[in-house]
Amino acid sequence: MTTSLSAELWPDVQPETARRLMLAGVESFAKRGYHATTTRDIAGAAGMSPAALYVHFPSKAALLFEISRSGHEQTLALVENALEKAEDPVERIRLVVEDFVAWHARRHTVARVVQYELNALPEKEFEVVTELRRRIERIVRDVIAAGAESGAFSVTDSHTAARAVLSLGVDVARWYSERTRQTPAELGKDYSELVLRMLGTRAA
Amino acid sequence: MTTSLSAELWPDVQPETARRLMLAGVESFAKRGYHATTTRDIAGAAGMSPAALYVHFPSKAALLFEISRSGHEQTLALVENALEKAEDPVERIRLVVEDFVAWHARRHTVARVVQYELNALPEKEFEVVTELRRRIERIVRDVIAAGAESGAFSVTDSHTAARAVLSLGVDVARWYSERTRQTPAELGKDYSELVLRMLGTRAA
Repeated sequence: MTTSLSAELWPDVQPETARRLMLAGVESFAKRGYHATTTRDIAGAAGMSPAALYVHFPSKAALLFEISRSGHEQTLALVENALEKAEDPVERIRLVVEDFVAWHARRHTVARVVQYELNALPEKEFEVVTELRRRIERIVRDVIAAGAESGAFSVTDSHTAARAVLSLGVDVARWYSERTRQTPAELGKDYSELVLRMLGTRAA
Repeated sequence: MTTSLSAELWPDVQPETARRLMLAGVESFAKRGYHATTTRDIAGAAGMSPAALYVHFPSKAALLFEISRSGHEQTLALVENALEKAEDPVERIRLVVEDFVAWHARRHTVARVVQYELNALPEKEFEVVTELRRRIERIVRDVIAAGAESGAFSVTDSHTAARAVLSLGVDVARWYSERTRQTPAELGKDYSELVLRMLGTRAA
């Protein structure tokens, strides 16, 4: 089960041992925080020796960076994907919110590490991830601004609106659990309706 | 400066030494997480000996509980206060969002500990805090349901709507910083407009 989950989370990471360590890292960081977790804890949780961990990751920070970068690349990809699938700003925002919210619900443990352990990244790695975050924000802001321009949205401050839209999605990782009555996809749909109204669209 | 900040944060806590330890706890937990922080770290940050800490708090968990309980009581009080100040559901939600968002912006470091270290609380203390959270959610949900009933809001699922409203406020603690261009009060006003639209009110 652990193997298939890690393959689902990080299809591009090879070999499977590296993915297994990333999954153990996610679980340990989510439970006790990055700073309270040692490489020994992570290796142990993955059923390996600390030496085996260093074969794949030079440090605990490198492991966190891989988790963080991959999570940000995945969310950037789904935001970019929404641009491909639709031209209309209303449809674009609907798709962005559906997918972004569903990702943070389905991947809530990974997402907590991705969103809440940013400050534990070393400076250079932090910059890489910050640039991915800027790209996500810029796309959402530009779509909202385009919709405001065309009259589809009624928004005066696309910066604040974009922040609120993404914030709603990110916070899902904090509170979502397996006991939540909505599935990730259902929550994505409910939230996209709320967001479209928030942006003052008539279509909502 | 530290002294006056701690008195502002916890006016009801006495003596000042206890408040100083709570502030040192907030700063240490926010920086490295609860589990990576020792009572020695906290005492040291407050310029005291570990023994001096135990005079005021029997354990690190007791210190976290005091920070968490107090933060939840403060946010519950401002939500209850909004009910006192207005009768109309639209005005009530406007006040709740303004004050809840401004609190999470102004107190963003305290709020991060309050919102993200819940799972570190021992079981009994967790239950106390969870009950405070339930009361906050219930009030917001009831106001939204009352507004939906009267036709002031157009909401089909007051549970999801209340969750989204509070979620927007809580997440402010994650991203707000001293460099944010809006003051806490300005952000509260901007967000209350967004929320009123999200709830489908005509007044927005």
